[in-house]
Amino acid sequence: MIFTKNNISSDLERAWQNDKDHVIHPYANYERFHEDGSVVYTKGDRHFIYDDKDRKYLDGIAGLWCVNIGHGNVEMAAHIGEQAKNLAYFNTFEDATSPSAANLAAKLASLCPGSLNHVFFGTGGSMANDSAIKIVHYYFNMLGMPKKKKILSRNLGYHGSTYLAHALTGISSTHIGFDLPKDMITYLSAPYPYRRPDEMTIQEFCDSLIEEMEHKILELGPETIACFIAEPIMGAGGVIVPPDGYLIKAYELCKKYNILVIADEVVTAFGRLGHLVASKEKFDVQPDIIVLAKGLSSGYIPLGATVISETIHKVISRPKPENPYFSHGFTYSGHALACATGLKNIEIMEREDFCGHVRTVGPYFKKQLKTLEDLPVVGEVRGSHFMLALEYVKDKRTKESFPAEINIGKRIYHSAKKRGLIIRPIGPINVLSPPLTYDKDAIDETVDIMKKSILETMNDLSKEGHL
Amino acid sequence: MIFTKNNISSDLERAWQNDKDHVIHPYANYERFHEDGSVVYTKGDRHFIYDDKDRKYLDGIAGLWCVNIGHGNVEMAAHIGEQAKNLAYFNTFEDATSPSAANLAAKLASLCPGSLNHVFFGTGGSMANDSAIKIVHYYFNMLGMPKKKKILSRNLGYHGSTYLAHALTGISSTHIGFDLPKDMITYLSAPYPYRRPDEMTIQEFCDSLIEEMEHKILELGPETIACFIAEPIMGAGGVIVPPDGYLIKAYELCKKYNILVIADEVVTAFGRLGHLVASKEKFDVQPDIIVLAKGLSSGYIPLGATVISETIHKVISRPKPENPYFSHGFTYSGHALACATGLKNIEIMEREDFCGHVRTVGPYFKKQLKTLEDLPVVGEVRGSHFMLALEYVKDKRTKESFPAEINIGKRIYHSAKKRGLIIRPIGPINVLSPPLTYDKDAIDETVDIMKKSILETMNDLSKEGHL
Repeated sequence: MIFTKNNISSDLERAWQNDKDHVIHPYANYERFHEDGSVVYTKGDRHFIYDDKDRKYLDGIAGLWCVNIGHGNVEMAAHIGEQAKNLAYFNTFEDATSPSAANLAAKLASLCPGSLNHVFFGTGGSMANDSAIKIVHYYFNMLGMPKKKKILSRNLGYHGSTYLAHALTGISSTHIGFDLPKDMITYLSAPYPYRRPDEMTIQEFCDSLIEEMEHKILELGPETIACFIAEPIMGAGGVIVPPDGYLIKAYELCKKYNILVIADEVVTAFGRLGHLVASKEKFDVQPDIIVLAKGLSSGYIPLGATVISETIHKVISRPKPENPYFSHGFTYSGHALACATGLKNIEIMEREDFCGHVRTVGPYFKKQLKTLEDLPVVGEVRGSHFMLALEYVKDKRTKESFPAEINIGKRIYHSAKKRGLIIRPIGPINVLSPPLTYDKDAIDETVDIMKKSILETMNDLSKEGHL
Repeated sequence: MIFTKNNISSDLERAWQNDKDHVIHPYANYERFHEDGSVVYTKGDRHFIYDDKDRKYLDGIAGLWCVNIGHGNVEMAAHIGEQAKNLAYFNTFEDATSPSAANLAAKLASLCPGSLNHVFFGTGGSMANDSAIKIVHYYFNMLGMPKKKKILSRNLGYHGSTYLAHALTGISSTHIGFDLPKDMITYLSAPYPYRRPDEMTIQEFCDSLIEEMEHKILELGPETIACFIAEPIMGAGGVIVPPDGYLIKAYELCKKYNILVIADEVVTAFGRLGHLVASKEKFDVQPDIIVLAKGLSSGYIPLGATVISETIHKVISRPKPENPYFSHGFTYSGHALACATGLKNIEIMEREDFCGHVRTVGPYFKKQLKTLEDLPVVGEVRGSHFMLALEYVKDKRTKESFPAEINIGKRIYHSAKKRGLIIRPIGPINVLSPPLTYDKDAIDETVDIMKKSILETMNDLSKEGHL
């Protein structure tokens, strides 16, 4: 065993080496990984996280848009320990359940708008989206409409990484090298105001997106289209906030052409935008299916949920002539400990009024981060509440990007990390999506570190002749 | 809210009603569910589980082939509580890790045979199989063999329930009503000795399966076939033990035609057959990929793993010209708390020598259960160690099945449940797959209850004119 890292204790040295030798990381960067390995994170406390050298960081990304109640919540940890002792797992197939699965389903039904009152559980967002599509196809088969199967998604939409969920994802660079079932999916343009055509106003851009959508629907034939899947604000695509009116109009088109809408709220729900579920309360739209994960359990235990409307449920819960079973489901659907974690998570969020806190502090966060638009490389600061991003450009007027190999987002990430802040680099974009425990101090420190990190990176780029 | 169940406390009444009103169960039986609802299970202790009326049952199925160390293990529960307080979750994308993800990967590399030394984590078996196929396709694309994509699976094989994993699953009744990517999959015959053609010896049957496989390979063209996926002993298909020599010969064919083998060890690993990983130690075969879940964490936290060979890893871990990323991965890949649970689970299994216990007691379990073959409706008792099944027939000589609507397996399940034993009904089959804590007393009681339940059901069937 060869160690190439110094000053860390032997257990953590071993972990670092083990990771390098044996872990296949999600979205591993194989230009760097074989040499650099990983940073070993060892503990968390509210919105702070510590690495193997006991360096403390502001966790500006909540693990990965996940740990909404914050790390190391002792009430949650105690509850998890107790529930694990009592009953961690029994299957919920067919006619078995646990109090936590039953009561979390009822709670989610009460939180979701309209008639969305039946819950299929899984272990995360990918699986919940995968299940949503399977359910939609089953629904149209049961209705005797077997041609109604195509899916409208959008460029830059992110919907996960199973074979199907990866295909739903409209970030085409992630598709390279994989075989995915893309034939049934049509990717509409991203509602990306900052990158709209130069000559268009935002209103014109919005109209053009809706026109494109209706054109595509008519081209494909509405009778062939099952559903439209959309995040209300795109997450991993770069925190893309659609133009005002876009979502409402897109939903209206779907209603007009009998196309179901799946709202992927994996990122936007559970307080990140100041609401436990955002579709209706924040965006005034009524989906047919809402997909939940991440903040649902604050990441303490893997958990996801596909919440469907009464209309869909009525159809899929009819016994078929061939057999009465709805033959879909996972070992860990309705996992007792995971569902108990989800219930406790919502209890804590409601009791501590995390949504109220986000609604109060979120605008301040954005306003302070917006001040960085004064810097020459910051093209746009965008987002809402605890879901924010900065997009960097070489030229603010033309919005020309830096060459990809500059890795501007990654450079600023490293600079911020050095200063004790973890952000997420996505190409020329940095994302901020902290735990909802983030307070004014943490926000101020975050904005300060971002400013210093951008300035340092600008300085480096300038020295290297890129600026 | 209408209550239709008596004698349960109001909290549990509410849970029962909430479940009925809001949960979409895996494999819900919609002929019964709207009326009957679910049994609410409330706590577990080793191989016992309790329902909402505090009735105690032998958990003859370990939750669902999962809870191998037994329910309510206090050491495990305490460890989970501690780890949740310390660090439940931070992402492992690209260049971040946790000690538990790193060390569990190293541990799995040490347990898996041959050069299987790199681990991709997910949250369960479906996701792990889904990832295995994505990885295999990516591998052949990286090798410049884009036509090598077809998959050999088998009738009655069970590989999960994502869109892709459901298609891998060869239980055709489960496909009804769903749209699945079956075009790339060829289903070979199940290696089901009990249901082999009448005129064949087991050896002839085995030869015919291998001939069929080679014929299919040549028909499709080996250059179009990426992989063969197989459980060493089929689980949900009905505990189907292939003829001696079948697995070795099937693996040899794959080697001959450059077809990768994925061993789905979701059920068979972690002690159920007396080994932590069974492929090499029990079946003397060397897969290219091993898929693990269930017993990996004893179900305490959702966890799955796809373990790949050095050969595959070398290819998929090269940076592509277009971008250096391996663009696959889940939020909960390498989940710190889940991986800590996996590590503790293996520690407990090794320290308490669960595998030794299963190897000692397993043959007794089978021998005792085999005595039930004396009963006229028990066509076969089969399986190995803690993975056993009984198949019922109307006529032992002709092996004629009961009509499906008799629900023989379900009737015996209800009869056994009344007597304090939970088994799993799969059509005319009952499965037994208890926690590895099962001792001689539990085995004796199980066999006794099975006998009484079968006799009672025979008696009922006789009264109804079916026997």
